[in-house]
Amino acid sequence: MADVFTAYPRNRIAIREVGLRDGLQLTASWPSTEQKRDWVKRDYAAGIRHFEVGSFLPADKVPRFADVREVAEAVDGLGNAHGIALALNQRGATDALSTPVGEITVVVSASQAHNAANVRRTQEQSLAEIANVVNLRDTAGKRTIINAGIAMAFGCSLSGEVPEDAVMRMVDRCFEAGVDMVGLADTVGYAGPRQVASLCARMERHLGGQPYVIHLHDTRGMGIANAAAALDAGCRIFDASLAGLGGCPFAPGATGNIVLEDLIYLAEIQGFDTGIDIEQLIATRQILAEALPDETLCGTLAKAGPPQTLNWRAGAA
Amino acid sequence: MADVFTAYPRNRIAIREVGLRDGLQLTASWPSTEQKRDWVKRDYAAGIRHFEVGSFLPADKVPRFADVREVAEAVDGLGNAHGIALALNQRGATDALSTPVGEITVVVSASQAHNAANVRRTQEQSLAEIANVVNLRDTAGKRTIINAGIAMAFGCSLSGEVPEDAVMRMVDRCFEAGVDMVGLADTVGYAGPRQVASLCARMERHLGGQPYVIHLHDTRGMGIANAAAALDAGCRIFDASLAGLGGCPFAPGATGNIVLEDLIYLAEIQGFDTGIDIEQLIATRQILAEALPDETLCGTLAKAGPPQTLNWRAGAA
Repeated sequence: MADVFTAYPRNRIAIREVGLRDGLQLTASWPSTEQKRDWVKRDYAAGIRHFEVGSFLPADKVPRFADVREVAEAVDGLGNAHGIALALNQRGATDALSTPVGEITVVVSASQAHNAANVRRTQEQSLAEIANVVNLRDTAGKRTIINAGIAMAFGCSLSGEVPEDAVMRMVDRCFEAGVDMVGLADTVGYAGPRQVASLCARMERHLGGQPYVIHLHDTRGMGIANAAAALDAGCRIFDASLAGLGGCPFAPGATGNIVLEDLIYLAEIQGFDTGIDIEQLIATRQILAEALPDETLCGTLAKAGPPQTLNWRAGAA
Repeated sequence: MADVFTAYPRNRIAIREVGLRDGLQLTASWPSTEQKRDWVKRDYAAGIRHFEVGSFLPADKVPRFADVREVAEAVDGLGNAHGIALALNQRGATDALSTPVGEITVVVSASQAHNAANVRRTQEQSLAEIANVVNLRDTAGKRTIINAGIAMAFGCSLSGEVPEDAVMRMVDRCFEAGVDMVGLADTVGYAGPRQVASLCARMERHLGGQPYVIHLHDTRGMGIANAAAALDAGCRIFDASLAGLGGCPFAPGATGNIVLEDLIYLAEIQGFDTGIDIEQLIATRQILAEALPDETLCGTLAKAGPPQTLNWRAGAA
């Protein structure tokens, strides 16, 4: 059992930079380790405290994440920063547990069809593997958070609608497997604001103050509207990536994760104190422009900047 | 007095294509009259029924709208289509009244500073001119809707915060001047969802079922989230432009009006029947790509398309 409230203090909003993992999943090229470190450092200087650092996969097969350990160490070297890594199985989790990451994300899909297509396992097999990862963590005597990311929680590009009840059952099964937290992912950008509001309200009632993550993609332009709905419903932990880096494996050319800087602007204008300097964050996009010259940098706020004549941080009510 | 409910039936959502006016306000070039007609025709085939056709300004000074009469006639030639034109003064309104447009938009700013900068008049002078336009309409024995667009209703790039009370006072003064409808414009994209929810809820209480327009810009990425908030609050008339055409005079390079196709997707996924074929509308972007090769076509849905495996039109709840 890990203490989730150290990494995610109660009633504080946490916005996690997932660009270094989810954002780099489908790019034509990837930044050097030095560029990744620089990205982390500059995000941190702007106020970001939560970083998905990469994925623990065989380095020879997935070279873009071969330096995940170095990125994890870079995050660990900063004060009060929380590193998160993806691990798809016990082998990856074993590697992750030998690094200073504070959190390991494991994945299961809310849709049986997608679970099979994604990791060639049944949901039951994935849940058993998640329980194994929790055991590994416990045996190692570590307090690393184990977080189950539930993919396709808002609809599936293979099987269509995913009922709320099915998502909530999967949430329960993940906790039964021993995880400390769960995340709900709109993997393919199918969600709408009312759907997000409804599922988050249910999560709030069901979890009674236990934190959970909302992981949104902007594939169909609903990303920020969905985040606003989740925020209104009480969700306090969000994934996003600088310049919206990332894509959708089922829609080539589509936009990716919700845009970090736009999301922070939303949170601030809605009255939340994120502690993040948006203009400094916008300037950090320059690293991506240099490191990933072939990628389209998304995001609207970066073109206009925050309002100059308005105290927008106070929440313009 | 005009009957607003013929153009805007009660409890129906109306999404107005403003690309042909607001969208073309700042473009480097503009489409030919034939291309504008084609744009209208293809929008109409997709289900759009409300069109802002242009602005009645001196044709020699503003050649991009020199063909506003022809575009108005093209809209009038389609069954059950509603044409809207901008007129900044009595001269423009006189011209507009000699065409078949069903609605004339007049403009006043919620901010005294912006009113002066925009039209070199005080708010009082603008309101007097609006009353003159209403008189012109009445004297002509026409039933053309006069709609007062209230600029900077969510904050002003010159004077900062615009209190809700000031907006509501301006709404009252516009109705006192004789207009049939008002619109609230987030001219520079300063609004946030909670602010929109609050102001729209107040409009609902204040107007008790009389229709009003929300005119949003996506300058800072909040456009669709703001539209979701307005829709939830009860607003049923929205402006948007195909591919988000349009800009912001105070933020060069910034994004413009909210994206028509993304807005329609939002409305449908939230459970409203717009009667519009989104895929046909997305295909219509091709006209803009040809007519305006130097413009960035915005919009996220166009890259991925609507979900293929989900009955998203039913509202994914």
